[in-house]
Amino acid sequence: MEGTSFVLKGDICYSKTPTSLFTAEQGFLVCTQGTSAGVFDRFSRIPQEYQHLPCIDCSGKLIIPGLVDLHMHAPQFAFRSLGMDLELLDWLETWAFPEEAKYQDISYALRAYRALVADLQQGPNTRLCIFGTVHVPATLLLMELLEHSGLVCMVGKVNMDRNSPDSLREADAERSEAATRQWLEQCKTYRRCKAILTPRFIPSCSDDLMRRLSAIQRQYGLPVQSHVSENLREVAWVRELSPEASCYGDAYARFDLFGGEVPTIMAHCVYSGSKEIALMQRRGVYVAHCPQSNINLSSGIAPVRRFLEAGLSVGLGSDVAGGVHTSIFRAMSDAIGVSKLRRCMGAKDEAPLSLEEAFYLGTRGGGSFFGQVGSFEAGYEFDALVMEDPKPLPPFALTVKERLERIVWCSDDRSILKKYIRGTPQPASGFKAPDGQWR
Amino acid sequence: MEGTSFVLKGDICYSKTPTSLFTAEQGFLVCTQGTSAGVFDRFSRIPQEYQHLPCIDCSGKLIIPGLVDLHMHAPQFAFRSLGMDLELLDWLETWAFPEEAKYQDISYALRAYRALVADLQQGPNTRLCIFGTVHVPATLLLMELLEHSGLVCMVGKVNMDRNSPDSLREADAERSEAATRQWLEQCKTYRRCKAILTPRFIPSCSDDLMRRLSAIQRQYGLPVQSHVSENLREVAWVRELSPEASCYGDAYARFDLFGGEVPTIMAHCVYSGSKEIALMQRRGVYVAHCPQSNINLSSGIAPVRRFLEAGLSVGLGSDVAGGVHTSIFRAMSDAIGVSKLRRCMGAKDEAPLSLEEAFYLGTRGGGSFFGQVGSFEAGYEFDALVMEDPKPLPPFALTVKERLERIVWCSDDRSILKKYIRGTPQPASGFKAPDGQWR
Repeated sequence: MEGTSFVLKGDICYSKTPTSLFTAEQGFLVCTQGTSAGVFDRFSRIPQEYQHLPCIDCSGKLIIPGLVDLHMHAPQFAFRSLGMDLELLDWLETWAFPEEAKYQDISYALRAYRALVADLQQGPNTRLCIFGTVHVPATLLLMELLEHSGLVCMVGKVNMDRNSPDSLREADAERSEAATRQWLEQCKTYRRCKAILTPRFIPSCSDDLMRRLSAIQRQYGLPVQSHVSENLREVAWVRELSPEASCYGDAYARFDLFGGEVPTIMAHCVYSGSKEIALMQRRGVYVAHCPQSNINLSSGIAPVRRFLEAGLSVGLGSDVAGGVHTSIFRAMSDAIGVSKLRRCMGAKDEAPLSLEEAFYLGTRGGGSFFGQVGSFEAGYEFDALVMEDPKPLPPFALTVKERLERIVWCSDDRSILKKYIRGTPQPASGFKAPDGQWR
Repeated sequence: MEGTSFVLKGDICYSKTPTSLFTAEQGFLVCTQGTSAGVFDRFSRIPQEYQHLPCIDCSGKLIIPGLVDLHMHAPQFAFRSLGMDLELLDWLETWAFPEEAKYQDISYALRAYRALVADLQQGPNTRLCIFGTVHVPATLLLMELLEHSGLVCMVGKVNMDRNSPDSLREADAERSEAATRQWLEQCKTYRRCKAILTPRFIPSCSDDLMRRLSAIQRQYGLPVQSHVSENLREVAWVRELSPEASCYGDAYARFDLFGGEVPTIMAHCVYSGSKEIALMQRRGVYVAHCPQSNINLSSGIAPVRRFLEAGLSVGLGSDVAGGVHTSIFRAMSDAIGVSKLRRCMGAKDEAPLSLEEAFYLGTRGGGSFFGQVGSFEAGYEFDALVMEDPKPLPPFALTVKERLERIVWCSDDRSILKKYIRGTPQPASGFKAPDGQWR
């Protein structure tokens, strides 16, 4: 158990269900050794056993769960916002692959990953699922930095043994497997930063490699992250590469790397049709919805309303550097925005996402991949943000929901007054504050 | 002539054409009494007569023209980000009209407008076309605050005499005309803040009122701003209200309030068809493209590529509070984003906007409504931003264009080191720095 025990007093807001918020003005949120013991509307209602805990007065501030980023690429942070005129496959060749190849150089990786981790520490996300590169030393370095950052992450050494440049591609399936096993042995000791198996996507992974990764998955009981149905050219390519698969997702499923017993996140799902949605639903696959990336790379708009109606587990992803912004607040407002455009542009029966739904996706929806995370109900891990209302405040009174709405759209890192992860105030000790400079 | 004379040294970037940037690393930008005398790549190439001017060293910083917001509603700033689940007509009834009615109270207007103007002073926009409310005192107050802010603005007292709540609607066309004439007489003395005639939109203005406004326009030689073809329900309503008009724009044109001799900005144009585009082209009407508002109010995506191909004058608008963010950097990245989605969602022959195009729209495109504004070519009014690169910088070298790209996507008010308007450093003296608090 991490974290101390205390009470936060302030205006508390979290998702009860995908469509409803719990709010308490001047409420009390109890943390016991890193876990929430619940929210109480008056001090006298706090159970006697917790009434002696130190009470931290955050009156007038909004207290919400930490945000969860289900999908981002650590080595792409350096070039975010650049090359936004290309679509997925050309963008990978022109920007992502050449940049990722540089992480062979551990000193480059150190400079780049330190800057990323410092940036993440200042932002509102408390949990992240992260792609590294194929390189074992750089991925271990990233995990080391994250472990000491206070953030709770799942990080994957990427696997790719085909259809990618020599400078980045692993020589063959056997060597990719060996490197993965080496990585897994070396990152066992971390408490906050855990390994997640990361086949890049079907076009990058031979069948031989997928079979080996499946064996590793079973042996270590690992979760899995990858990409599915992001872009039309990619989807057509996968159809050629895996003609026997009934849909893109099935190309993972036939190697037992698509849900079922295996906790799995699939990013994008822009072009997931009924068959793929049904398969994700049956096998409990998580969707990482990455609206900004899907705009920037001209991918399209994912049918999130259909996912929700089908009962899928959905969270949000920044997908840096397909997406530019690391903050999941931005992913929330973008998710609402693209859902409106999707309806405008033809999907008349798909209602736009509400604020409540977008907030749910970015907290409890994605958080559930980490267990009891993303809520303040008793028993949930205590990840919390204490937020200041973005200035200037309007000259009229605001409800807690309206204040949340303003924070989602208008806040930046200056609005974050305190951050707790598993009950520990951030930044965790031992990590040097960033100076904002890489060179 | 305002402004002093000086030279700025730094990395300079401005639009030459809609599709090309001028860039000069370590260049020299000469300002003489508020006007650009051009950019020179070496000190020795600066004309002798300017070589004695004080040189302000901004080495390593990016120097770009100030940004131009062609469309925003001052009284809506207070509730930006709220009520984003409604479409235009319901949103007007529920949020915009009731809020605007409060500006009858001058003390409310003072609180709200001070906060807006302080916010604008901290942002990257240097020129704005602004809607006030129907109220003469509040609109004069807004102009007074803006006049002393240093910003150069066109501001309109809004006209509306039908189809709006009693609390806001002007009693009849005659009284709307009288109030407009009173306002125009009282705001004649401002140097930086000029009047622009502002019939709200066709549904709010009777034919009688439009005829009177047309007479005022001719008498005072005023420019005009309004809305056109924003939302499908609105467009259908205008068809009912003006059955004799050949398109929505023609409903303004038949009162001579749609370009021709009258400098005119029309916001949105989401549903402008071939006929309306041709009419705007013939009459030189400016389009204020407001991508974020068009997302938030589920309006749709304007066919900007078609406007550009038709040779229309196009600028960007924040449309606060249909839009949330005042910065035209955000409008640039949103404009690129929605142009990609428009193509994804069916308009296969409409190429997405490039960075160069979006930057042009937000500087020189909109700036031309103000005259020689939005560029650093000799003879242009000297509006400039000195920008710091958003941190952290990547661990590789960046071109000037790439630095601009990062600024468009990732900068915030902290990135603005200096701002000049007509050669005067901002904030202009005499305006109290904001404390960020309204209450």
